[in-house]
Amino acid sequence: MKQIIAQPLTRDAFAQFGDVIETDGAESFLINAGKCTRFHDLAKVETAGENAHTLINIFRGTPYDFPLALEMVERHPLGSQAFIPLSQEPFLVVVAPDAGGRAGDPQAFISAPNQGVNYARNTWHAVLTPIGKAQDFVVVDRGGDGNNLEEFYYPQPWTIALPGSFQGTDQ
Amino acid sequence: MKQIIAQPLTRDAFAQFGDVIETDGAESFLINAGKCTRFHDLAKVETAGENAHTLINIFRGTPYDFPLALEMVERHPLGSQAFIPLSQEPFLVVVAPDAGGRAGDPQAFISAPNQGVNYARNTWHAVLTPIGKAQDFVVVDRGGDGNNLEEFYYPQPWTIALPGSFQGTDQ
Repeated sequence: MKQIIAQPLTRDAFAQFGDVIETDGAESFLINAGKCTRFHDLAKVETAGENAHTLINIFRGTPYDFPLALEMVERHPLGSQAFIPLSQEPFLVVVAPDAGGRAGDPQAFISAPNQGVNYARNTWHAVLTPIGKAQDFVVVDRGGDGNNLEEFYYPQPWTIALPGSFQGTDQ
Repeated sequence: MKQIIAQPLTRDAFAQFGDVIETDGAESFLINAGKCTRFHDLAKVETAGENAHTLINIFRGTPYDFPLALEMVERHPLGSQAFIPLSQEPFLVVVAPDAGGRAGDPQAFISAPNQGVNYARNTWHAVLTPIGKAQDFVVVDRGGDGNNLEEFYYPQPWTIALPGSFQGTDQ
């Protein structure tokens, strides 16, 4: 079984898969007579296909045990999907490049507090994977007609481990 | 000067102005082999006009003093605008019905923890008004061409007070 170790989530490392949604390093400007900072347009939202529209949802995810056996990734051919945590807890972000219509080798990242992600349209990713505790997320994705889900099962599961240095927010 | 007292934010009271974004009472179903609850489609997102698309932003708002003098409300003719707090702190939600192209008498609400709002397209509302502390919000609104901002100044400011029973989250 092949194993990977999750790495810190950064804009550079994630760039080919979508957006890291965070204020650090983001473009911003003042609005409302200086009372509010707008960190502007942090993710490329895509909604394609018939009757496409943007959905705002809340996902309540239960935590996973580690090391994790990753068997499946999925992608959404018709839209992006953003996850913004409503807590300061970490979650695991797993993505994979496309390899001729199948998912290539996965890459795994651990979010820092105040980081969300937006999976670009048609990007392979694992399901929502909270670490440590049940967590709520704002999710912005696509509604409409047509099939917006494709799944890929790896021939053999991957093992995803947290780094030995990893400490949850409670420790 | 006319005064109003802010009231608790509820779906019923807010229905004519847009959506309260909260899990309580929302439609939900299980996904990801039962590991995640999806509270589905909590807000009607609208993006109209040329080159319209959905934006995901983070707004960092500084708190306001109370009683508040409300001079101005605004509306967005081309899109909805959702505010989902990233903290448990309360914020003030001020909306007004339209009265022949001008804003009518305002109504004010105080959010509970885990409540966000979505202002429907073209609904008069006050600017982001945190109570007590600086707060971050996920904001989902509309980008694109055309003028998406209209402001209305009341002939005389309204005074908005918090109820005498109101306790911030710190007390």
